[in-house]
Amino acid sequence: MNHILYIKNAAQIITTTNHSEKPAKKDEMRHLQIIENGSILVEDGIILAVGEDDFIREKYTDDINQAQVIDAKGKIVTPGLVDPHTHLVYAGSREKEYVMRLEGKSYMEIMEAGGGIHATTVATQKADFHTLYEETKRRLDTFLLYGVTTVEIKSGYGLTLEQELKQLEVIDELRKNHPIDIVPTFMGAHAIPKRYENDPDRYVDEIIQRMLPVVAERKLAEFNDVFCEKGVFTPEQSRRILEAGKRYGLQPKIHADEIEPLGGAQLAAQIGAISADHLLKASDEGIHALAKTNTIAVLLPGTAFFLMAEFAPARKIIDAGVAVALSTDSNPGSSPTISLPFIMNLGCLKMGMTPEETITAATINAAHAIDRAKTVGSLEKGKQADIVIFNVPNYLFLSYQYGMNHVDTVIKRGKVVVEGGKLII
Amino acid sequence: MNHILYIKNAAQIITTTNHSEKPAKKDEMRHLQIIENGSILVEDGIILAVGEDDFIREKYTDDINQAQVIDAKGKIVTPGLVDPHTHLVYAGSREKEYVMRLEGKSYMEIMEAGGGIHATTVATQKADFHTLYEETKRRLDTFLLYGVTTVEIKSGYGLTLEQELKQLEVIDELRKNHPIDIVPTFMGAHAIPKRYENDPDRYVDEIIQRMLPVVAERKLAEFNDVFCEKGVFTPEQSRRILEAGKRYGLQPKIHADEIEPLGGAQLAAQIGAISADHLLKASDEGIHALAKTNTIAVLLPGTAFFLMAEFAPARKIIDAGVAVALSTDSNPGSSPTISLPFIMNLGCLKMGMTPEETITAATINAAHAIDRAKTVGSLEKGKQADIVIFNVPNYLFLSYQYGMNHVDTVIKRGKVVVEGGKLII
Ligand SMILES: [Zn+2]
Ligand SMILES: [Zn+2]
Repeated sequence: MNHILYIKNAAQIITTTNHSEKPAKKDEMRHLQIIENGSILVEDGIILAVGEDDFIREKYTDDINQAQVIDAKGKIVTPGLVDPHTHLVYAGSREKEYVMRLEGKSYMEIMEAGGGIHATTVATQKADFHTLYEETKRRLDTFLLYGVTTVEIKSGYGLTLEQELKQLEVIDELRKNHPIDIVPTFMGAHAIPKRYENDPDRYVDEIIQRMLPVVAERKLAEFNDVFCEKGVFTPEQSRRILEAGKRYGLQPKIHADEIEPLGGAQLAAQIGAISADHLLKASDEGIHALAKTNTIAVLLPGTAFFLMAEFAPARKIIDAGVAVALSTDSNPGSSPTISLPFIMNLGCLKMGMTPEETITAATINAAHAIDRAKTVGSLEKGKQADIVIFNVPNYLFLSYQYGMNHVDTVIKRGKVVVEGGKLII
Repeated sequence: MNHILYIKNAAQIITTTNHSEKPAKKDEMRHLQIIENGSILVEDGIILAVGEDDFIREKYTDDINQAQVIDAKGKIVTPGLVDPHTHLVYAGSREKEYVMRLEGKSYMEIMEAGGGIHATTVATQKADFHTLYEETKRRLDTFLLYGVTTVEIKSGYGLTLEQELKQLEVIDELRKNHPIDIVPTFMGAHAIPKRYENDPDRYVDEIIQRMLPVVAERKLAEFNDVFCEKGVFTPEQSRRILEAGKRYGLQPKIHADEIEPLGGAQLAAQIGAISADHLLKASDEGIHALAKTNTIAVLLPGTAFFLMAEFAPARKIIDAGVAVALSTDSNPGSSPTISLPFIMNLGCLKMGMTPEETITAATINAAHAIDRAKTVGSLEKGKQADIVIFNVPNYLFLSYQYGMNHVDTVIKRGKVVVEGGKLII
């Protein structure tokens, strides 16, 4: 017999509609479907119907009679949240570096004290598969508690073929075992390893000639990401790496214009990247180039909050016609949080987004940023039943009652995985 | 037989010590006692011993044999958090006003659309005792989930004797029934009611002559608070109200220098207020006046965060020698959050406090701000066993992993009230 799940009495069901093909831009980002007193019917992990209580009750009486019932009275229902940019596979933590930063220590002082990305690279290189697997699994469990049902994870703390493969294998194993849908990205170009400090082009060659072929052949990644930044990879090097990835079927992503306006946004547009991420310093030219494409601007305000830096010009980017998504950027150095709902709060309070825009940005547009919009990111018939029930009376409370975790229930592929704010897997 | 609770194996026990008489100032605010591999023994709701695992195990073998045991392996233990400034008894919510603010609407436009404090006053006046009781109870339950075991609550949405008494009676009833320790403050002087708009002094008279005597006689409050601000109560009016309260045994508190530097900090020092709250615009003179006293500066960075305003100069205030506490300011207009841990995050990331200072500010100094430091706010022998276990490996993670709720277990007077992040009362 088929498994039927029936969610009823929701104060509001909130979703975008008709954006499974193209991301929401400009006013579309504010246009949510809001069903008051709503129900959702799920059959074998797929959404069968979404509508008003009365309508669903009358039309699907037989299904309802055999259904598992969840009463969402006084609560709201949204699509499972999608986090399109994380660096979750790592060992070690960098809270001491954070304290040095609070005390006003300079980047150089932190580096000299053994901080920075190389600290994580060394710790991750040293960690065995099992340790990395368990620590990443714990982080994914926590993502579920914050309503996230699809997560992109990048490698990039390995920086050798063998070590990058170790990270990607951890991601692959979690993909098979964890309820969260995991989308893998190869990011060998996350930093210049110390061994190539004086000749970064040789590392670019190594990525292109040695890493990409193996990653692609073993199908360990769907995307290929580059940290295009002053002192890391130049736009030219980034282009070479991303073009090479494309030849192996890996779609380009790019860490663009975070610290300096190097033209990463333009490169993303030219090369047809699926997303351009960060964009704090993107030029007007870069923003307008992106607006002509369906490349998603993945904004990471948690990183700016945690680094006590300025925020990306989200208002300008959205108004220019670029489709925007939000993400935690979860990583041990610049954004150790796992709360995507809090990132949505920052979207409103620090980047001038509307509550509606932050919901679109953390659902359907985030799904577009990792090529999953056909299956997740909205509550529409035929889509995967990834659903969150928040214990708030209307969707505005998600950002109005800021800094809190309002997740009550999480449903992944039609199965309840979080109940009353607790993991039940 | 006595009830013994034994918490063992804590990665860290974190507390201030020796500040039950005087608040922590300057470097004292950074000076935490950190016990690694620590245990706490509680007898009938009172802390019997705090120390290293080995020491406690050997010295208290008999007690341990009959104890309820909590294993805090991999977690940290802190005093129950104390929130010394809330406006929790209210009806209605103001999320639409928040959205108008996000859209850049002016204060006047919000007022004209029916927003502002008067919206809450009207809704609260209309609400019956039962409704207010239930809504406030729900908020207090949520405070427990965020590790808060003592909460100050102000009246101030009544603005008539009868309506202020209704709010204070709700507080009083919750005091009797809720596990959280509740500290009541009378704040008739929260706003000028519309009926006295053209003659505020008559409202001051009403507070002094009609309200304070009844509130005091019925023992419904310990503190008397005034909103000293341009367009609300002048320093002169504030002084009259606070002096009158003192004659009835109500200790003064003051909302000081939030929007304009009116000299509220100086008034607090002169009048011997137990706390001066907000202080965003406090003058150097005001700060130095406070530094000569034990008046607590209660800082409310959530309000600045939510109003997208600037933050209080916490660094300057602490360095000048003023004892600082932190609070949510929980209220429906300017700070609807219930997460004191998130306020501690803002202390670090937005006000330049160290993680240690934010812990002191949310425990022992907060207890001083409401005259409870002799019984709560630290983990010391003889104190009430209000204890939080956070699911983090060390105390730096409370702000390093920002925007999250790390509370695992909450113990109130020796009784477990939150377990695995869920309320069990
Ligand atoms: Zn990144
Ligand atoms: Zn207040």
